[in-house]
Amino acid sequence: MADTPIRLGMVGGGSGAFIGAVHRIAARIDGHYDLQAGALSSTPERAMASAEELGLARAYGSYQDMAEAEAAREDGIEAVSIVTPNHAHADAAIAFLERGIHVICDKPLTATMQDAERLAAAAEASDALFVLTHNYTGYPMIRQAREMIARGDLGHLRLVQVEYVQDWMTGEAEGKQAEWRVDPERSGAGGSTGDIGTHAFNLASFVSGLTLQSLAADLDAFVPGRVLDDNAHVMMRFEGGAKGMLWCSQVAPGNENGLRLRIYGDKGGIEWAQEDPNYLWFTPHGEPKRLLTRNGAGATPGNTAFSRTPGGHPEGYLEGFANIYTEAAQAILARRRGEAVPEGLLYPGIADGLAGMRFIDACVRSSRSDAAWTAL
Amino acid sequence: MADTPIRLGMVGGGSGAFIGAVHRIAARIDGHYDLQAGALSSTPERAMASAEELGLARAYGSYQDMAEAEAAREDGIEAVSIVTPNHAHADAAIAFLERGIHVICDKPLTATMQDAERLAAAAEASDALFVLTHNYTGYPMIRQAREMIARGDLGHLRLVQVEYVQDWMTGEAEGKQAEWRVDPERSGAGGSTGDIGTHAFNLASFVSGLTLQSLAADLDAFVPGRVLDDNAHVMMRFEGGAKGMLWCSQVAPGNENGLRLRIYGDKGGIEWAQEDPNYLWFTPHGEPKRLLTRNGAGATPGNTAFSRTPGGHPEGYLEGFANIYTEAAQAILARRRGEAVPEGLLYPGIADGLAGMRFIDACVRSSRSDAAWTAL
Amino acid sequence: MADTPIRLGMVGGGSGAFIGAVHRIAARIDGHYDLQAGALSSTPERAMASAEELGLARAYGSYQDMAEAEAAREDGIEAVSIVTPNHAHADAAIAFLERGIHVICDKPLTATMQDAERLAAAAEASDALFVLTHNYTGYPMIRQAREMIARGDLGHLRLVQVEYVQDWMTGEAEGKQAEWRVDPERSGAGGSTGDIGTHAFNLASFVSGLTLQSLAADLDAFVPGRVLDDNAHVMMRFEGGAKGMLWCSQVAPGNENGLRLRIYGDKGGIEWAQEDPNYLWFTPHGEPKRLLTRNGAGATPGNTAFSRTPGGHPEGYLEGFANIYTEAAQAILARRRGEAVPEGLLYPGIADGLAGMRFIDACVRSSRSDAAWTAL
Amino acid sequence: MADTPIRLGMVGGGSGAFIGAVHRIAARIDGHYDLQAGALSSTPERAMASAEELGLARAYGSYQDMAEAEAAREDGIEAVSIVTPNHAHADAAIAFLERGIHVICDKPLTATMQDAERLAAAAEASDALFVLTHNYTGYPMIRQAREMIARGDLGHLRLVQVEYVQDWMTGEAEGKQAEWRVDPERSGAGGSTGDIGTHAFNLASFVSGLTLQSLAADLDAFVPGRVLDDNAHVMMRFEGGAKGMLWCSQVAPGNENGLRLRIYGDKGGIEWAQEDPNYLWFTPHGEPKRLLTRNGAGATPGNTAFSRTPGGHPEGYLEGFANIYTEAAQAILARRRGEAVPEGLLYPGIADGLAGMRFIDACVRSSRSDAAWTAL
Repeated sequence: MADTPIRLGMVGGGSGAFIGAVHRIAARIDGHYDLQAGALSSTPERAMASAEELGLARAYGSYQDMAEAEAAREDGIEAVSIVTPNHAHADAAIAFLERGIHVICDKPLTATMQDAERLAAAAEASDALFVLTHNYTGYPMIRQAREMIARGDLGHLRLVQVEYVQDWMTGEAEGKQAEWRVDPERSGAGGSTGDIGTHAFNLASFVSGLTLQSLAADLDAFVPGRVLDDNAHVMMRFEGGAKGMLWCSQVAPGNENGLRLRIYGDKGGIEWAQEDPNYLWFTPHGEPKRLLTRNGAGATPGNTAFSRTPGGHPEGYLEGFANIYTEAAQAILARRRGEAVPEGLLYPGIADGLAGMRFIDACVRSSRSDAAWTAL
Repeated sequence: MADTPIRLGMVGGGSGAFIGAVHRIAARIDGHYDLQAGALSSTPERAMASAEELGLARAYGSYQDMAEAEAAREDGIEAVSIVTPNHAHADAAIAFLERGIHVICDKPLTATMQDAERLAAAAEASDALFVLTHNYTGYPMIRQAREMIARGDLGHLRLVQVEYVQDWMTGEAEGKQAEWRVDPERSGAGGSTGDIGTHAFNLASFVSGLTLQSLAADLDAFVPGRVLDDNAHVMMRFEGGAKGMLWCSQVAPGNENGLRLRIYGDKGGIEWAQEDPNYLWFTPHGEPKRLLTRNGAGATPGNTAFSRTPGGHPEGYLEGFANIYTEAAQAILARRRGEAVPEGLLYPGIADGLAGMRFIDACVRSSRSDAAWTAL
Repeated sequence: MADTPIRLGMVGGGSGAFIGAVHRIAARIDGHYDLQAGALSSTPERAMASAEELGLARAYGSYQDMAEAEAAREDGIEAVSIVTPNHAHADAAIAFLERGIHVICDKPLTATMQDAERLAAAAEASDALFVLTHNYTGYPMIRQAREMIARGDLGHLRLVQVEYVQDWMTGEAEGKQAEWRVDPERSGAGGSTGDIGTHAFNLASFVSGLTLQSLAADLDAFVPGRVLDDNAHVMMRFEGGAKGMLWCSQVAPGNENGLRLRIYGDKGGIEWAQEDPNYLWFTPHGEPKRLLTRNGAGATPGNTAFSRTPGGHPEGYLEGFANIYTEAAQAILARRRGEAVPEGLLYPGIADGLAGMRFIDACVRSSRSDAAWTAL
Repeated sequence: MADTPIRLGMVGGGSGAFIGAVHRIAARIDGHYDLQAGALSSTPERAMASAEELGLARAYGSYQDMAEAEAAREDGIEAVSIVTPNHAHADAAIAFLERGIHVICDKPLTATMQDAERLAAAAEASDALFVLTHNYTGYPMIRQAREMIARGDLGHLRLVQVEYVQDWMTGEAEGKQAEWRVDPERSGAGGSTGDIGTHAFNLASFVSGLTLQSLAADLDAFVPGRVLDDNAHVMMRFEGGAKGMLWCSQVAPGNENGLRLRIYGDKGGIEWAQEDPNYLWFTPHGEPKRLLTRNGAGATPGNTAFSRTPGGHPEGYLEGFANIYTEAAQAILARRRGEAVPEGLLYPGIADGLAGMRFIDACVRSSRSDAAWTAL
């Protein structure tokens, strides 16, 4: 017998917001959620208008009202997606966690380390689940890469090269998406490091299984007048001796959303690019390169499990995002049934969020010290 | 004020069916449909079990029961998706069309020309809409290609090269997906020509705007004992003088789902590949090649309109499929409101279905006549 | 002890000729030849000027003078490269063959079938060697493809897809390279079929080892006023049951020199593209695709033997061309030493030239009969 | 009237040497050189045997003997190629420079800074020319990239990302090519930094026109027991504010010879990869990406001038190398005629060699100081 969909709310994500719409689609793709309530904007009028536009059953002017009212309903929301700018994550998330409502929160975790720790404490104190949408970990080929490394296909890891390169902030920041990202009040201390560098760091950690020990970072704001970094060069040292480089940039013309990961060990290497996510290159040392595909020949269990279609039917960003929502649903539904959360779910959580915040913080501190090695 | 979702039913698509699951996801992605009823299998027991598994509100043992019962309900389904093997399309579709329920039907239209004509007559006689899911026309870059050709970017068209190449039937056909496709009773007279050749033909026609006049086809069943073609070589002559080639195959190892389209005129050329659908190559004659992207620089209105995310966030097969469902929803909702179907909707319909059937028929006839030129 | 270089002459290839310069570089790359004499143009004045420009030791105003004078010298040329337009191949080649001077001739063999047969008779009657520069057979990855098919890596062959696509004749033919190619007097009955279709046919035959039995061809001259075909669509039937398609075009904008070959059997498939010649895709059926590289992991003997540098140091068109010259040198030097020509040399010869002429002839005849199947 | 070929000698490059054979082919391709004399090995017997194998007119047991003897001959060599391991460059080069014989020397300049300065002094004191074969600067698309940047197509430069990645030293170093490269006595203080890092640094400088101010480097020898670095991560700061990263590695499985360069300014970006050298990606900010090709549409003068064939006929590593030899020949022939060296020749010389040595030295020093910023 099928579970009924999870009753879902949303904070942020009103008209014109990019990531709110993405979360809504991700929640719909596999049919596990029913979006019923929302506090979609920081101004009550726009929040109400956006809710009507989306046809939500219950609209609120603020997340506080929503948290209280929904917690009081028999049929209130079971989970909430938080998709505001970074600085508003912590308070909203805490309000729901304290009321036992599961939280699915966009990244980075918060705008400041203090907020991050406050949120982490609330998450620990709550019975509710906390899910962080480092969505790129949901790609099937990323799951395959992680499984291949875990089972030793690359041997002892030596090198991790990761980059996340965009061009949309090459000129002055314009539009709703850009403006808050260049504002330290709303974005936090990291510009590109917070917005996309954390994704790159998270992905490299997720796939390699390595723990970053220290980094040396050189951050720049190339656009005149910009306060937050729009480019970062980072050298990395991992526990166990592996080394790496991370480059994130939002000012490299010709790059739309170029997240790329390459990992090398003494037995082989892999290469993956987010813009062509259905492929994973794998070279066992001394043998020809293989082009592994989503749900194709040689697929590992995690590749197949997170694929909806046979190989050759490209799945993309939204499906990868949906995979995080679906893993979250498996956990939430288990809780609803009074069961333990199933083993093996890999959705990112509070620990990943804290690690991301420490990464941003270390980048900023290192760069201020002329790229001195800085422990995480 | 948001429209409430369209109440949807489904015929076929029970446990283990590939295309049924695809239709359900496509219907969910943009939130325009609510799947409430189903006759998901040709055997009542399995139909009921599948419906329970999916949590459908109303389950039926046959499409006849469903058509009657739903038509009688105030809150019955407004539209039905038909995702059975080809031979069962016509009767089911007619049952719903006759009751004024909109039909969204998988391709090819039917298994036989007689059925196709019967269904076409029913569609014409009905007030209800008929939508055929030639889903590849829903890709944003395909919309861009069509618009570029229509506005003359390629000049006078000379050449259309299209191919649809797979490898999954290289050996004996095994499994639910393969078995009915090699059975003339259920599949019709075309094997690969019906299953994928029609897609290639439809896509070439959709993008080029050209009308196929005649073809010369050489069909083969390479796997011993196979009755229906698993490979077809086709030369094409279009009205107005353009020429083309079409190759479809299900026995070419190394090709997962290789639908590729290239069109050339006296002013330029374009190239597109389904497995990398977010890209469109465009070369104005004598200038460097451009790599156009989904929702990227140089996007045409149809590209942008059918994109959910910015460039660099790959959208794939399911989103392209969803675009057909969403165009269908725009038409269905207009009807619900008593309005005319909006102009400019390009979802494929009965005429495309008939054209596809004539294509299959012409291929089979031509091949039987040693690849003689055969008018459509 | 190193052999002294082969004394070489050249007919055609004066100032501004493309292919003459290519032959000269190809002859130099491995150091086996010393170009000493030339009749480089059809007009004596330009022939003399071109020879002086190149610093040739002995210049002639006509190939007849050169053949006579060189044959009479103790230290005369041992071999001659013939790089004129097609219609002038036969007489020149025969003049040298009759004098025992080895001939290295550009393709296609001649402009007419009669000339081809006359030349074939002269080649057979002569002790001198005849080498035809179907240069694409010299690429290392092509040698690897041939060896893989010969040893059964693809199993029983079913499909051969080959195309040779250019765009430089999309508009009016202009310049020295274009003008003679559109002139039946100098080019022969085939336009694109003769200029590039023969290359595609030759390459497909060389790699697959299959013999073409019959073809159905649809030829067009898309540019107004053009007499010879600038585009050809060809369906092919090989002995043993394999089928194929061949497309050659010189009017497809966006294609510089797009010779591509794909071959599929019941055990695997390969794909190769001349513009990226250091790669060969190989898929054993049911396994991941491999990207084989020139002199890289998994290289066959023929790949390694025809590589000068390690993998990753791209070799190109000129090196592939040089490989034919070097194989020819191995044969010529063996003859000089009074030895038998070594076994295993694969440079194309008179039989390949005749096959190419029959291919052109069959294309033209088939097309005149509305693409009727025509035996070769 | 054509110039007679330059009489060339060679030091090093005996049997089994990779780079010696490359230099010989590069010298032959355009016909400007005639290799007449050699001291091809450090042991006289092997030197003589190698010379006989190559059919050299004059063989010597040591470079000293060769320098003296050739300088004394009327028809002695005019130029010499030095292709020994690094530690032997300086003494050999000085011996010929002191005798007025032009030197074409492989990179890096020498094994030590002292030798580099000694050689630089000798080069300055000599009338003879000194050419350093940073061959990658000879690629036509690299010339185009340099010209595009110089004319402002990218605007003000911000970012330079360069990497040179191989995998052939992933395991223990074996064979003639590997052994001396891991030996500080013969290779110098840099391992991968000297062997390939200098190429990457040179190429980035050549194309961007930027001057490197300081760097922070983290060098590793991943293979147990290896003394010299086999991997280096480098952050770079250029005069004028541009930043960059350089990665060189010889232990990254799946990379044959992966030299890649990406440069971004406030108006556009370019990307180039050595393994696919006939392409250059160019994106004017806000417009679609263009794929520029060797001698294709949009070619700059330097692209065309260094191309031997039309676009689509791939030229590779050997042709790029030959372009350096051909530029050197233009200078040498000018000198022979008593003319000034023509303007606009861009072959690398002693200044580039010194810059490369300073780069290696800075990398080693920075790494020993825990990646502290180190001025060049």
